[in-house]
Amino acid sequence: VSPGPGRPILVASNRGPVTFSRSEDGSLAPRRGAGGLVTALTSALQVTGGRWVASAMSEGDRERAAESGGRFEVDAGGARYDLRLLDPGADVFDAYYNRISNRILWFCHHYLWDVPRYPRFGADTAAAWDGYRAVNALFAEALAEEAESLGTAPAILVQDYHLCLVPALVRGRGAAGPIAHFSHSPFAGPDYLRVLPDEIRTGILEGMLGADLVGFQAAAWADNFLAACGSLPGAEPDRERRTVRWQGRNVRVGVFPISIDADALRRETAAPEVAARREALATSLGEMRLILRADRMELSKNVIRGFLAYERLLLDTPEWRGRVRFLAHLYPSRADIPEYRAYAQDCEREAERINAALREPEWEPITLSVKDDFQEALSAYGRYDVLLVNPVFDGMNLVAKEGPVVNDRDGVLVLSRNAGAHDELAAHALVVNPFDVGETAEALHSALSMPADERARRAKGLREVATANPPVEWVRRQLEDLEEAIAR
Amino acid sequence: VSPGPGRPILVASNRGPVTFSRSEDGSLAPRRGAGGLVTALTSALQVTGGRWVASAMSEGDRERAAESGGRFEVDAGGARYDLRLLDPGADVFDAYYNRISNRILWFCHHYLWDVPRYPRFGADTAAAWDGYRAVNALFAEALAEEAESLGTAPAILVQDYHLCLVPALVRGRGAAGPIAHFSHSPFAGPDYLRVLPDEIRTGILEGMLGADLVGFQAAAWADNFLAACGSLPGAEPDRERRTVRWQGRNVRVGVFPISIDADALRRETAAPEVAARREALATSLGEMRLILRADRMELSKNVIRGFLAYERLLLDTPEWRGRVRFLAHLYPSRADIPEYRAYAQDCEREAERINAALREPEWEPITLSVKDDFQEALSAYGRYDVLLVNPVFDGMNLVAKEGPVVNDRDGVLVLSRNAGAHDELAAHALVVNPFDVGETAEALHSALSMPADERARRAKGLREVATANPPVEWVRRQLEDLEEAIAR
Repeated sequence: VSPGPGRPILVASNRGPVTFSRSEDGSLAPRRGAGGLVTALTSALQVTGGRWVASAMSEGDRERAAESGGRFEVDAGGARYDLRLLDPGADVFDAYYNRISNRILWFCHHYLWDVPRYPRFGADTAAAWDGYRAVNALFAEALAEEAESLGTAPAILVQDYHLCLVPALVRGRGAAGPIAHFSHSPFAGPDYLRVLPDEIRTGILEGMLGADLVGFQAAAWADNFLAACGSLPGAEPDRERRTVRWQGRNVRVGVFPISIDADALRRETAAPEVAARREALATSLGEMRLILRADRMELSKNVIRGFLAYERLLLDTPEWRGRVRFLAHLYPSRADIPEYRAYAQDCEREAERINAALREPEWEPITLSVKDDFQEALSAYGRYDVLLVNPVFDGMNLVAKEGPVVNDRDGVLVLSRNAGAHDELAAHALVVNPFDVGETAEALHSALSMPADERARRAKGLREVATANPPVEWVRRQLEDLEEAIAR
Repeated sequence: VSPGPGRPILVASNRGPVTFSRSEDGSLAPRRGAGGLVTALTSALQVTGGRWVASAMSEGDRERAAESGGRFEVDAGGARYDLRLLDPGADVFDAYYNRISNRILWFCHHYLWDVPRYPRFGADTAAAWDGYRAVNALFAEALAEEAESLGTAPAILVQDYHLCLVPALVRGRGAAGPIAHFSHSPFAGPDYLRVLPDEIRTGILEGMLGADLVGFQAAAWADNFLAACGSLPGAEPDRERRTVRWQGRNVRVGVFPISIDADALRRETAAPEVAARREALATSLGEMRLILRADRMELSKNVIRGFLAYERLLLDTPEWRGRVRFLAHLYPSRADIPEYRAYAQDCEREAERINAALREPEWEPITLSVKDDFQEALSAYGRYDVLLVNPVFDGMNLVAKEGPVVNDRDGVLVLSRNAGAHDELAAHALVVNPFDVGETAEALHSALSMPADERARRAKGLREVATANPPVEWVRRQLEDLEEAIAR
């Protein structure tokens, strides 16, 4: 599959496709990342050529980058990459990555602040914003250099909320070739976006409008972006046609839902270790039903209300006691951010409280597994009867697509209407308002009680949707739209 | 001033224009409420005749209502009222007033939830919603009866988030006469409104769309309402013309900023007790500058960030230490709601921390006065050099208008851009993003440092705007628009 009209591709993302770490023999070994994004762009890059520009995230990355002046070639996971790793220094990186991207922009786009008390912007915010701007400028400079060195004008694909300023900065450097920006996160509504200091809010909007194409995972986020542009002086959004008139150009706004690499996922699932662990899980469960959640330990994932809904189920429908287990598989995440540590504690406390209140001699209602172990999640994907995906807000949520592809028990998906995945999967899922614990409890009960034929029909629908749009298609559609956008 | 074309008026509001309490001689004495709303509708009612339907809020109200079957006439504060007080019983009232109106709708419209953890809707929410519906139905029934008994079709003016269902319910009862609903609070953006259970969200929107005219304090809230209508099946909002096509009718959406009763405010200020207290305050301050805030102890008022901005001012510009005092006058509010108690504690803790860190032998940086004493606030209105009005979100905020009318020192207004009052007062205030502590600190410094001529020019502008639109105008404009709306 050729992903485009023969242009090379320049990818910019904070996290690159591989990370380096010291192996036992002392050499720096690359490990390829998982996920639809890496798969999609890796496939595309093998065909078109080009380069991937990313931050040096790990100590190994920084060492590897230092060896080669940041630009080098590497083979990993069966693919060849031309990489460029940028190292802005620890303090600037911290400002850009932790303080602005993860503690401000992520919180804003997911509505995570306790608004009467937080955020509290000040001089430290302004200083951190300088760091964000510096790293974005570093990316733009690198992209402009790489575009020039490629000979043919490349398609420049900028990823996510870390790099919102890059499109306008690259354009300002006169780089040839069309520019796309894609947000993997949600995009906040206009009121909430205005919580940000003006400099940050207008910086982000103007930065993204430097692109020819601004892409989102779901229609709701595209619409919020268009609405936000309505408050940017000089921008003229057209919500119907999904374009923004800006500085004499028409910026196209598009919706490109990303999906998963189903083949790779099935290969990983078929690994003997996963099979063995699934066997062990099956033995421990016996006839017991399994409700599963698998998420990063993340404020937006709505772990606590998930536990409360399960408790409500057990209180309202006591016949489920002893017949179902809730396995919460949570990957540790951002533990250096105080809000995340507090949230993890609250999640654990809630699970303990419910277990203490409802456990029976032979039965523990909730199993909370907090560790970074994707194989464990994969083994549970195979065995669940109900998959709970109830984020308060979520750009897409790939667990909702991974689970159904691996599961072979016609497990039912209970899905938040505020996950981007809702656009595609709603017809085959039980959809809930993630703030409504009662509704979620009823959905869990419906899922556990669902007749086999309906389960099968829905599971088939989920599998079809989850595999219909392979990652390379996600790139192809963007590249097509990008060519159309600049042809006008 | 005749407020309309001669129709009688029926007002519906949760809190009526008078409350009753036992006086020393054992009789039930009426006391008239303060504020622009009561003034405006009282003036109008004296001219047009009509009736005011409200909840019996106090024990005295309930006793007075019981004496006369709920319908009676009363003289209070120089005006005559035909009242009807409704008493739905304590449990239903609690569900309607505390659980739905104040803990859910108020939180929603002001973005007050700590979204990763709250709200948590469930069966208790559904039960409380039944209470809200019951009280709204009680109001609608009473209004329909009163409309019939008046002979001439009245203008029915329904107030605020407590009574969102009333317009559609009154229309459903075939009441003659045009219906207006007015929101004194903000109106949440569409994403945040969707936090509500669907039944509540659609109930509110459909209920309000039962009116011929839906009014708001500021353009931002009207626009949010129109945006929310876009997600209501069958509703066709036209954002440009500010109308919603709904069930074969065109519902008009209008912006009617309410103002204050400047004459009454000046009369109260002239009272000897206020003058004496102002004198005492002046003596205690001497040459000291005064920064004032006067608010309900309310999650939306942003008290903590106000203290932090003042602390930042004192840290960054130490020459202000010993030369300025921050007086925070906070009326106790909703202390039966746990979030309010916690917030009040946090505010007190923050003030104590700052005082402990920065106090000097002869100087206390912050005076926190938590009591229900409007005369104290009035006396401070006269004396402030800077008035801080920095709510996170606020429908209008009348302190921003009261202060400048009473103040005679050319005090400077530091004003949140998220207060409805911003639409009218921005040109004469120092405008801040209420989440930006640094920006607020800078505004306080600018206000304290402002040259006398600029202070005078701005203070004049504030006074002119605050008095230009007396409360009776607010009613007149709505009644005019209402006639236009039904004439089409």
